[in-house]
Amino acid sequence: MIQTAVILSTGDELTTGKVVDTNSAFIADRLFTVGVKVAAVLKVGDDREKLLWAMHQGSELGDIIIGTGGLGPTADDLTTELVAEFLGKKLITNQAVADSLKKRFEARAIAWTPNNLKQACFPDGAMIIPNPVGTAPGFRVTMRQGKSLIWLSGVPQEMIAMFNETVMPWITTERGKDSEIFSCTFKIHGLTESKLDDLVKPVDLGPQHKLSFRAHYPDLTLRLTASGGNGEENGFVERCKQIRRILGTYIYAEGDVALEEKVGQLLMEKNQTLALAESCTGGLISHRITRIAGSSAYYYGGAVTYSNEAKVKFLGVKPATLEKYGAVSEQTALEMSRGIREKTGASVGLSVTGIAGPSGGTPEKPVGTVWISLAQPNNHEARQFQFHGERERVILGTSQAALNWLRLALLE
Amino acid sequence: MIQTAVILSTGDELTTGKVVDTNSAFIADRLFTVGVKVAAVLKVGDDREKLLWAMHQGSELGDIIIGTGGLGPTADDLTTELVAEFLGKKLITNQAVADSLKKRFEARAIAWTPNNLKQACFPDGAMIIPNPVGTAPGFRVTMRQGKSLIWLSGVPQEMIAMFNETVMPWITTERGKDSEIFSCTFKIHGLTESKLDDLVKPVDLGPQHKLSFRAHYPDLTLRLTASGGNGEENGFVERCKQIRRILGTYIYAEGDVALEEKVGQLLMEKNQTLALAESCTGGLISHRITRIAGSSAYYYGGAVTYSNEAKVKFLGVKPATLEKYGAVSEQTALEMSRGIREKTGASVGLSVTGIAGPSGGTPEKPVGTVWISLAQPNNHEARQFQFHGERERVILGTSQAALNWLRLALLE
Repeated sequence: MIQTAVILSTGDELTTGKVVDTNSAFIADRLFTVGVKVAAVLKVGDDREKLLWAMHQGSELGDIIIGTGGLGPTADDLTTELVAEFLGKKLITNQAVADSLKKRFEARAIAWTPNNLKQACFPDGAMIIPNPVGTAPGFRVTMRQGKSLIWLSGVPQEMIAMFNETVMPWITTERGKDSEIFSCTFKIHGLTESKLDDLVKPVDLGPQHKLSFRAHYPDLTLRLTASGGNGEENGFVERCKQIRRILGTYIYAEGDVALEEKVGQLLMEKNQTLALAESCTGGLISHRITRIAGSSAYYYGGAVTYSNEAKVKFLGVKPATLEKYGAVSEQTALEMSRGIREKTGASVGLSVTGIAGPSGGTPEKPVGTVWISLAQPNNHEARQFQFHGERERVILGTSQAALNWLRLALLE
Repeated sequence: MIQTAVILSTGDELTTGKVVDTNSAFIADRLFTVGVKVAAVLKVGDDREKLLWAMHQGSELGDIIIGTGGLGPTADDLTTELVAEFLGKKLITNQAVADSLKKRFEARAIAWTPNNLKQACFPDGAMIIPNPVGTAPGFRVTMRQGKSLIWLSGVPQEMIAMFNETVMPWITTERGKDSEIFSCTFKIHGLTESKLDDLVKPVDLGPQHKLSFRAHYPDLTLRLTASGGNGEENGFVERCKQIRRILGTYIYAEGDVALEEKVGQLLMEKNQTLALAESCTGGLISHRITRIAGSSAYYYGGAVTYSNEAKVKFLGVKPATLEKYGAVSEQTALEMSRGIREKTGASVGLSVTGIAGPSGGTPEKPVGTVWISLAQPNNHEARQFQFHGERERVILGTSQAALNWLRLALLE
């Protein structure tokens, strides 16, 4: 029975920081969907001792080891040899794999060198895992106590294909029916992590339920998971409802949905179009909106009016307003949102103007002071916000607050 | 003497594949520059047993442990408590940290809840590592055999600030003089990794020199490091010169400088101003330019003309041009850059128009087709580019190509 896994990501490029390891996150995510718990991810370089250490630890902690990397033909590719050593098995050349490798090389007119034969050697008794994308196949071997060790190419594209086509079906079969897992992710805006923690404390969690938090500014995520057996679904659904009741519109989306995606969905649903007038966010809101494929259906465009002159020329802000109240003021924000809405004919005009820092702050308007304004058919309003931290944080926080206000306005 | 490190990345979001761990790659990269070898990276979830296991393994394998994550105020943040347990030390409230946290909450009018006090508790004898970006400070404690354990916030932005401001200077001092490492980072645009590899092959590297590559789209970085003793500096300087001779303007900057920062420096130096007309990049170039503090000195602003109507209204593109050649064409790009330059009076007008995908491509103009145009006092030109991959990659690649062209034009 496969309940826990240990993932081994190997290669010097990982321990010297040259490459970010995305393989382990991919594998962990896939395992999560079938209820296999990842006990640990171990990353080591192309080093004999450390690789053996990692295999040993993996076989202690997990029911399966899934390793990636080091299956290539060069001298620093040690994996297969060390797995055989670790298991006390011989290396055997697989003739079918050797023949197919040779054919592949011939077809591409690449010279065949003896070290390529290395990729056709596997520990005795290994099941071959085909590599539909590259040259090196992977393999699965049985360890003591019926545990399994699976090794895949370290090239993400190859690893993904091997995992999806061979490993995942095998694991799913092994796991059987009674391992179902339920999971729901809530994306939150408007609460701190500790306030959120407080609010969801009354949710009655059984031993098989787990609530986890993740704050990745400006995003805050709450996830409820339930692992267990039959009949669990009802209890899970009930708890999700309870969380929705408690958090209400603090939840901006469920699942892996970005705030700008949610806003796009609402604009589509309500058949509205958007135009933006950005000052301190310098184009970030526009970039976030247009990251989403299909945004041209509801996004008209906008102006990044970084200078006062641009505010006057593109948006029709009155020079007297800028003179009297300053660029960061309720009046300017209102004229900006009205201006962009009128110039473009979009249903909603959204404007932001503020002081992102590090300079430009005053005692009355410190760094982080931001005015956001929304111009809609029956509503024209500006609100003041105060952000904290460094320039990038102020810019990011402003973009999030503006998109969230727009979301709430569209929900009304 | 710090020779080896073990990095611990912790949090359920890592072992469930919800998030890719970039922290360990960042830390490994920084440690590499000062010659500290990473023995292993261990990732475990918010789980008592596994966290203690990881600390134990780390203290066996490394001279220092650097951990991230689990310093937050919520129930699943176990780190500090477990470190104290692991070391057999008491948890002590640091009054200065508690006061500063309370002040921070007051200043932002956020309700203070008792669980926030958790972030002011540290194992007895710990040195506090300030968190200049977020709430939770980190700490450093001494383990047996003079080994050290360092723990930082898991939020990348906070971790980076804490690492750069406090941890790195401490490690550098500890490593002492005879481990001096010279390192130079070249930021590259316009070469593939393998082409770059080919070009720098003739550089005569001694045994103490190492060239490493890092491709993190759209950035390509080449790093020369020399570890060794005295008198090494001269040889190092000579090799840097050789690399500069070979790569010329493919190097857009040296050190940790973003392309948009370099462009900003050049605009300042040349006393020029910039205005942007973006279509397919949707505001990303504008966002990148304004990420840089002080950009209001040279950035006028711009238009995100996502619809044809916006191109006509904001930039004066002729409807006949759009009709005849289409929005993604040399003629439209030229009219956009001229339009934004004339409307704003900026010295340089830069425009982009293209097909970011996934839809909108045709056999003649496939997804990834982009026209970029530059309007300068004595030059008005448009160039076609072809990008590959998904929407975000096309958008990012376009922004990089546009900024790089602007850089080269400013250098002329």
